[in-house]
Formats: sequence, C-alpha cells, structure tokens
Amino acid sequence: MGGRAVIAEIVAVGTELLLGQIVNTNAAYLSRRLAELGVEVYFQSTVGDNPGRVVATFRQALARSDIVISTGGLGPTQDDLTKQAVADALGLRMVEDEAAMKAIREFFARRGIEMVPSNARQAMIPEGSSLIPNRVGTAPGVIIPAGDKTVILLPGPPSEMTPMFEEEVVPWIEARTKGHRTYLQSRLVRVIGIGESTVEDRIADLITHQTNPTLATYVNGSEVQIRLTAKTADLDEARLLLDDMERRVAERLGRYIFGVDSITLEKAVASRLQTLGWTLAVAESCTGGLIADTITNVPGASNFFLAGLVTYSNESKSALLGVDPELIVRHGAVSPEVAAAMSRGVAEVTGAVAGVGVTGIAGPGGGSPDKPVGLAYVGLHLPGEDRVQRFLFSGDRLDNKHRTMQAALGMLWLAMPAPAGEQRPS
Amino acid sequence: MGGRAVIAEIVAVGTELLLGQIVNTNAAYLSRRLAELGVEVYFQSTVGDNPGRVVATFRQALARSDIVISTGGLGPTQDDLTKQAVADALGLRMVEDEAAMKAIREFFARRGIEMVPSNARQAMIPEGSSLIPNRVGTAPGVIIPAGDKTVILLPGPPSEMTPMFEEEVVPWIEARTKGHRTYLQSRLVRVIGIGESTVEDRIADLITHQTNPTLATYVNGSEVQIRLTAKTADLDEARLLLDDMERRVAERLGRYIFGVDSITLEKAVASRLQTLGWTLAVAESCTGGLIADTITNVPGASNFFLAGLVTYSNESKSALLGVDPELIVRHGAVSPEVAAAMSRGVAEVTGAVAGVGVTGIAGPGGGSPDKPVGLAYVGLHLPGEDRVQRFLFSGDRLDNKHRTMQAALGMLWLAMPAPAGEQRPS
Repeated sequence: MGGRAVIAEIVAVGTELLLGQIVNTNAAYLSRRLAELGVEVYFQSTVGDNPGRVVATFRQALARSDIVISTGGLGPTQDDLTKQAVADALGLRMVEDEAAMKAIREFFARRGIEMVPSNARQAMIPEGSSLIPNRVGTAPGVIIPAGDKTVILLPGPPSEMTPMFEEEVVPWIEARTKGHRTYLQSRLVRVIGIGESTVEDRIADLITHQTNPTLATYVNGSEVQIRLTAKTADLDEARLLLDDMERRVAERLGRYIFGVDSITLEKAVASRLQTLGWTLAVAESCTGGLIADTITNVPGASNFFLAGLVTYSNESKSALLGVDPELIVRHGAVSPEVAAAMSRGVAEVTGAVAGVGVTGIAGPGGGSPDKPVGLAYVGLHLPGEDRVQRFLFSGDRLDNKHRTMQAALGMLWLAMPAPAGEQRPS
Repeated sequence: MGGRAVIAEIVAVGTELLLGQIVNTNAAYLSRRLAELGVEVYFQSTVGDNPGRVVATFRQALARSDIVISTGGLGPTQDDLTKQAVADALGLRMVEDEAAMKAIREFFARRGIEMVPSNARQAMIPEGSSLIPNRVGTAPGVIIPAGDKTVILLPGPPSEMTPMFEEEVVPWIEARTKGHRTYLQSRLVRVIGIGESTVEDRIADLITHQTNPTLATYVNGSEVQIRLTAKTADLDEARLLLDDMERRVAERLGRYIFGVDSITLEKAVASRLQTLGWTLAVAESCTGGLIADTITNVPGASNFFLAGLVTYSNESKSALLGVDPELIVRHGAVSPEVAAAMSRGVAEVTGAVAGVGVTGIAGPGGGSPDKPVGLAYVGLHLPGEDRVQRFLFSGDRLDNKHRTMQAALGMLWLAMPAPAGEQRPS
C-alpha cells in the first residue's frame, strides 16, 4: 500500500436494514472511528440476506478498498450468511475452527441453555482466516486475508460489534497502518444569529482556497455549523492546522460563534450566564416550554435558571406575568409589545436578572395575512437594556418551535456582555 | 417492467456520513416506506462529496434498479453536487428552471434575507427533469427520467426530505407500481403504564403462533410498542389481517393501549382532554418544561392547555404555585407531598380542571442514597381525585427527563375516565 492512505469500505448485511426496521448506526460508528484512526472510507454499502447480492457486494468492495469491514449476518439463524458469501467471493473452503466450537459449547453450558445444531455453524470459518472472540454473544468475528487486502466480519448487534472492534480490530488496524497513516481530525465551529449564505459569504475566501483543513457548512435549524477537517500524518500537526483555521474563521464571524464541537447553544448560554452571575427566567407562548426544557438539559441549570412560565392562554399572560390585558387587546398576543411585557414580567415575578419573553404562531392554525404562521417575537429584559426582535420561519409546527427556541437563545447569547478581553468583532 | 416488483435503490450523498458525523436515518425511513408501498430495495449506498465516485454510484444503481432515490447534496453550498453528477452520469445538460428561480427569490424576499449568488445554483436542473417543490427549505427535489428508469433527488435534511417524499414521491410511486406489488403493511400498537416483559407475557401466545401478521416489541423510554406486519398481494386483505391481530392484542392489553401508529401519547392525552372538556395546567421541576413542550407539540393545544410553570427553584414553587415552604423543608422538594401540592397549586392558580405536578432528580448531580438520581414523583389533581405515584429511572439526565415526562402523561392518560362504551379491561 506504499505511503498512501489505507482505504476501508463498510458493508452492512441484513434485510432488516433494507426494510427500514432498524437504522444503520454501525456504519456511522465505524466510519467515525476509522476517520480518527486515519483510515479513509469512500463507500458504505447495505445489502440484504441474499447470497448472490452479498457475494457481488464483497467482490466490488474488495476491488476498490484495502480493508472491507462488514457487520451482520454472523448469527445462527438461517438467513445469516456473510461468512459463506465471503468464502464464495474469495474462492475459499469453509473449515471448522476447534477453538470456536469449544467456545460456543461453553457459552451454552454456562447459561444452561441447550445448544441446537445451527449454533455449530458458527464455528465454521473460511480457510486461512482467524477468529475474533465475542465476549458478549455467541458469534465470533472473523479476519480473512485476501492477498494484500483483508475482510473483517463483525456481528450486527452494536453491543457485540463495538467491544470487538475496539478491543481487537483497532489494534490490528493501528499495527497495519503504522507509518503510512493520515489522520483525519475535524472540528465543528457553531454559529447563531446569521444565516448559512451570510456565513459562506464571510468565509468565501477560506472556502475557495481550502485545501487542508477543508471547510463545509451545515444547517441545524437556526444554527449554522462549519466543519473544519484536517488531514495530516501527525496528530499535533492536525491540531495546529485546525487551531489556525478556527482563528481565521473567528476573525470573520466573531461574536456569532457561540461554541465548538460539543458546546451546544444552551451550554454556551448557561456558561455565560454563570460567568456573569446572572439568573434567568423565561416566559413562553408559542415555544410551549421548549426553551425551559432545552436550557434545563444542561446539568447544573438550577444554579442560574429560576423558572419558566408557559403562558399559553391570554389570561395566564396577565394573571401570571402581569401583562396588561389592554396591551393584548390593542396589539394582539403576538406582538413586539407583548413579547417585551412578557420578558419584563417574568423577570419581575421571579426576581431573575435576565428575562426572556416569546410569543408567536407555531401553526398549523392561527395564522393571518398580517400575522402568518411562523411569526415570532422575542423580547429580552436585561440589566440596563430591553430589546425585541421579529422572526419569521417557514417550517411546520415543530420546526417553528425549534427555530424560535434557537432564535431566543441566540438573541440572549448575542446580547450578553462578553468577558473583558474576548474578541467580539461584529 | 411487466408483472415483477419494482426495485428501488437508495443512494445517500455526503462526506459527513462517511466520516460518521451523522447517522443515515433517511435510508431507514425511505426503505420502510418503500416496503409499505410494495417497492423492493436490494441496496443502500452511501458515497461522499466526490464527483467521480458519485457518478459511478449512480451509474451502478441505475444498472441494477428501476428507481434510484438519493438524499443529500442539493443545497447551495459548494460541496453540494448531486444534480451535476446525475446529469454527468446520464449525459444531460444543466438548464435553469424559471419557476424554481422565482420560488427561491420569493423565499428570500419573504424572510427579508439577502439572496447570494450561490442560491441561484439551486435553480439549475438536468434538462428534461421536473422539480419537486420544497415547502420547508430552498432546495427543490428533482425527478429525472432515464429511459424506463427514474432518478429522484431529495434534500438531505429529514425535515425537508420527509414532506417532499410523502406529498410528491409517494403518489408518483403509487401511480407507477399499480398492479404488480406485494404489500408489506404494518401497524404500531402503543402501550404505556406496563413494561416490555409484562407486555410480552400477555401476548406470549400471539408471538409463539405468529406467521402473518408477525409481531415484534420495541421500547421507547417508558412506552412499549408492538409492531404488527402483514404481507399480502392485496391491501384490503392486509388491513383485515392487521385489524384482527390488533383486536387480539387489545383483548390482552386493554386500557394500556393509548394509540396506534402516529397517535403519540401527547395526542392521545390531548384528544381525551378535549372529549372530556377538561383544561390542563402542569407544574414541572425535574422535567424542566418538557411536559409542556411535548403537549404543545399537538396542534390546537391552546384549546385545552392553559399554562405550564417550570418551578425550578424552591422559591418559585412557593411564590408561583403556593407550595407551603414548610412542606418543602419537612419533606424535601423531591417528595410525594410536594408533587401533590404542585399539582393542586397549578390547577388553582391557572383555574385548570386538571393539574399535573412533577418533582424529581434528573441528575447527574443532586442524588443521595435516600433520593437517588432518577427518582421522580408525579402528582395528579383531577375532579374528585388526587393521586401521587413514585418512579425510579436509571438513565442519564435527558433519559430521566424523557421517561418522567412519559410517566406523567401516561398516569394522566390512565386516570382520565374513558368515554362510555369504550373497552377498558385492566
């Protein structure tokens, strides 16, 4: 394989995947781990329990990749056929592995379950291959050499596949790829308050000239994500490249960046509130509790989150938040005036430093030409400052709730003073 | 295509899938729906944002399937390349679609966002193809005829892909496959209030003798689901088989069944509340707004849902719900007494007929030997009846919030009087 990167392909075997009865989380898991190990994945394939199609899939995978890792089709049931298919694809005989036979017998004896003949089939392996023990279930994995290529068969259940991969396959890959490995390290830069096209415009020069790291943008509701991916022969070099690119992205997007990697918007908001020593209360109408729910997903939220009031009816807006009924009559419940009054009211009744008030029309009903479905107003009541912002989303009820929640937390994030010394270009 | 089944292949495009950054839930969704529509799927393929490999993948898929459905790679960013790749694979020119250009312009005008040049690329389509409108985002889908075969391109985000598939592609498939299909129809029977092993015990005879329909049980937090699947050449026959099996399952599980298929627990609760003419208010501590959020996911929730109070601090429990501070001191905030007081208090301050009060320890911190993480008390205040129930869950913070929410809605479901004549064996 010389100095080039090792290329792997992931093959999932199982009709249940083709019927959509289960989601192929194994492919995502293996792909992520292989990327971290510096192994490139160009293709993932899924095929059902059909011998001919399984053989064809393995032949194709072997033609275009160095390592083929498959999941599924190793169990004792009649539709589990992966080993035989690989033997057919490679022209190998099936032989009984004594150690495997012994392990299977012991597994059943230990559990006091009677062994049926089909279990014995699990001890049959293609000649020349070696077994990977299974600590959790009965089906061992198999490593099958094929010239300068290799096929690795793993069981389908993630609880069996994962430990087998981590304990046995990872060391094998590390040994095999030593010296000609390229690490693929990535970092997610997370942005709120501006749209994907604006983000792309601001980093257009970086995207145009991207080589290493590469940049790609994604959208998650009102959040925009930029994934930086570095490919290097050395882990430290990857980190330095990512640090440098992150700095250049930050120069262009500044304060709209709320976090990196696993730092969600609610975690960023929670952390900033605690740095400032602020307490928070939220008053929600159209989001129906989603803002409170999201912020309380952060462990330790009780340190700063005092209360959330989901004032769905007009009466509850007045009774619980002290919103003047006159104001609702004059401007309507969905109005900047009511959003502002809700944010002030919830801060007052709870004694919180910061108050957030949200009112809008999540849909599908309740819209009008003046106030369409997807319209939302977010009010912020902060020390020395009140502000209201209008948003218009075009999703279904759940999308609109989700995006309004993100918009409210994003507004709060952008409005909170940054600690001294933190770079905040606009 | 004569009388044989129509064969479809699913192609997912996106390097983020090959890096394991996201899980390919689209493939499972489309596969399941295609099976229900009588279309067979033999292969699912995933390929990265590499033009050559995308072209090769489409060529292969077209060689072995009648319909190729792809997801991903339709957005405005530079790495979105699916349309061009399919045009290359089929030797078609790219042309601008006027209607699409107009729709994109309007989308941006409506939101008051400036349109950037990259958005215009979304209006380019392979000649001879037709567009599928996107109600949710900007990227339209595309249907591309290729001799007697067809390529259908859908966007990657499930919130855009799903409505587009259901509203536009499903009718297209139904028209095309009429007369030569085997239907795989399934039905999900949904249960709350008893665990999976109890469910399996009660329907053990049905599971043992299953042939058509088949039965399988699944767990979703505190909910148990039983999937019935019938395979027939005729839709009506499938329905009759499923009706009969559902009746037999209902005989064994009775009132613990809250709904079928898309009837979620919150929808069942919302519907029953409205039948009874009851209004609802909820007081939440450990669930942090998740109950209010979940119940307000039901369209029209404003008909019965008055307010939710997320009283995270002890002070807010007393100030907003009138919970006696003495009670909290004596029994602790996480106690049956406080849950009951919260449910009564929230009904009182909002004037709701039914009140729900929840207090518990979501974790990871805050637990003790007496009151471990995962402990929750749910109080119900209903006409003529108050009740409190204790729950103990063993998940992480988000699991515990989710299961407590389900437990609270489940308790409410089981406590509400059933309409006269409805079968409710215990």
